[in-house]
Amino acid sequence: MSRIYDRVALIGLGLIASSLYWAIKRDGLAGEVVGYARSSETRETAREIGLCDTVYQSAAEAVEGADLVVLCVPVGAMESVAREIAPALKQGATVTDVGSVKRAVIDAVAPHLPSGVHFVPSHPLAGTEHSGPRSGFAELFEKRWFLIVPVQGSDAAAVDKIEALWQGIGSNTARMDPDHHDLVLAVTSHAPHLIAYTMVGVADDLGRVTDSEVINYSAAGFRDFTRIAASDPTMWRDVFLNNKDATLEILGRFTEELFALQRAIRTGDGEMLHDYFTRTRAIRRGIIEAGQDTDAPDFGRVKS
Amino acid sequence: MSRIYDRVALIGLGLIASSLYWAIKRDGLAGEVVGYARSSETRETAREIGLCDTVYQSAAEAVEGADLVVLCVPVGAMESVAREIAPALKQGATVTDVGSVKRAVIDAVAPHLPSGVHFVPSHPLAGTEHSGPRSGFAELFEKRWFLIVPVQGSDAAAVDKIEALWQGIGSNTARMDPDHHDLVLAVTSHAPHLIAYTMVGVADDLGRVTDSEVINYSAAGFRDFTRIAASDPTMWRDVFLNNKDATLEILGRFTEELFALQRAIRTGDGEMLHDYFTRTRAIRRGIIEAGQDTDAPDFGRVKS
Repeated sequence: MSRIYDRVALIGLGLIASSLYWAIKRDGLAGEVVGYARSSETRETAREIGLCDTVYQSAAEAVEGADLVVLCVPVGAMESVAREIAPALKQGATVTDVGSVKRAVIDAVAPHLPSGVHFVPSHPLAGTEHSGPRSGFAELFEKRWFLIVPVQGSDAAAVDKIEALWQGIGSNTARMDPDHHDLVLAVTSHAPHLIAYTMVGVADDLGRVTDSEVINYSAAGFRDFTRIAASDPTMWRDVFLNNKDATLEILGRFTEELFALQRAIRTGDGEMLHDYFTRTRAIRRGIIEAGQDTDAPDFGRVKS
Repeated sequence: MSRIYDRVALIGLGLIASSLYWAIKRDGLAGEVVGYARSSETRETAREIGLCDTVYQSAAEAVEGADLVVLCVPVGAMESVAREIAPALKQGATVTDVGSVKRAVIDAVAPHLPSGVHFVPSHPLAGTEHSGPRSGFAELFEKRWFLIVPVQGSDAAAVDKIEALWQGIGSNTARMDPDHHDLVLAVTSHAPHLIAYTMVGVADDLGRVTDSEVINYSAAGFRDFTRIAASDPTMWRDVFLNNKDATLEILGRFTEELFALQRAIRTGDGEMLHDYFTRTRAIRRGIIEAGQDTDAPDFGRVKS
């Protein structure tokens, strides 16, 4: 692949940033990729494992001369980072972010950026339950969607260029309006995460069912919830606080539907349950056909 | 491995029975493994793919002379199958089942079995979202738990022998009281399944979010729910109708907890959310340590 940016700065060095680093370097998509993390421990780890060509002591130093700045901090930290880097940004630079909500990030970041800097928010639909600078790997984005959410007045050439970068690291890309993004993600990600956190919390609370039983017998469905509910607590706190309306709306619908199914169980309405479960099964087929999962029979099982 | 039973009969030829067949034959744990399925289509498929040494036209014929009979039908069909096979059972034979609820199965089956036949209910905590005679594979039970739920008066030697079989196909085994089993499974399996079915149903209902968006962007959490919600509709209808009380109790606790988290989102209580998510993350670690999942960083992702 050919170089797309001369100098990329990653602000925040967790799962997404570290994966971006390894992917961009593997594919030779940038001349230089530098970084900054707020915690000195993270900066030391990054230096130790060779994450970033240079790790700087401040976000402002890291973005100096960068053609592309990628904000990889929790959504709640976006505004203070934007304030901090704004004076140091190069004219003509592009700023993007990888936050899981878009309206709140746009409101937090856009007002602080100087004119002559292009803001093109993004969101990779990729992740694992691991976090921190050691958790990244170059393949994280392969065949995953990288959504691009241009703001009013986003420069078309800047948008095309960042799209080329995300495609270069193996992602599919799509462009989306910020509010629509936040609603779609409330359905496909934010509500499922809150539900998984809740179910795992309920299991943890149940004094009558000991920890070791819940853990040993998790393979029967609960295991998938625990993987989701092991995601980074700070990131997810910020997601819920910043996509409040859409998340609460989906959760309201979820509760309504759950009550209908509970009622069918209570009244013994087997036909309603069977019809419902048959309908949801079809959705799975669509996901496998869309290439977003595999139907290998041993999928998800421990290899001995 | 040495032979444990001379003749095993599998009644019902879906995911669990077909996996049992391949596993028992691979390990030489029985002299002969025969089977029966109610649907002629399933019986034909079984003959075509070499599933079972003999496929019989009736359950009664299949169990004749068998030392071990394994009932692998949905929980709602257990009683009629028990009635049908009872007169044909060999004296001294052991009958087991693989149903996901145990109290209801015991109540449905035990009264019909003749004296001199040992009833030792079981439940393998293993499965995939696939069903039918083609979905089985010998490795399904490896390192998974096979719970044994002896009933009042279960013969100790019969229990030990079936435990040897389940261990022979690679499972861990544990013994449990029926009511405790049903409560533990309500937490680790039944409630999570209903919740996953519900969330997938909500996504399907949302006219504003098109199918293709929900499907394309499923990798962000929703994907794990769709896998759970793709499980066999008949089996799950019967599970909920037959483990009603425990499932409704856990769902009640779940709803209560979900409301508390929704309230924290609405009021902006970030500390409560962060504390909750930190606690649930620790449970994941326990599951990996218990060998019931892997923490490989690319776990669950599509291989190209």
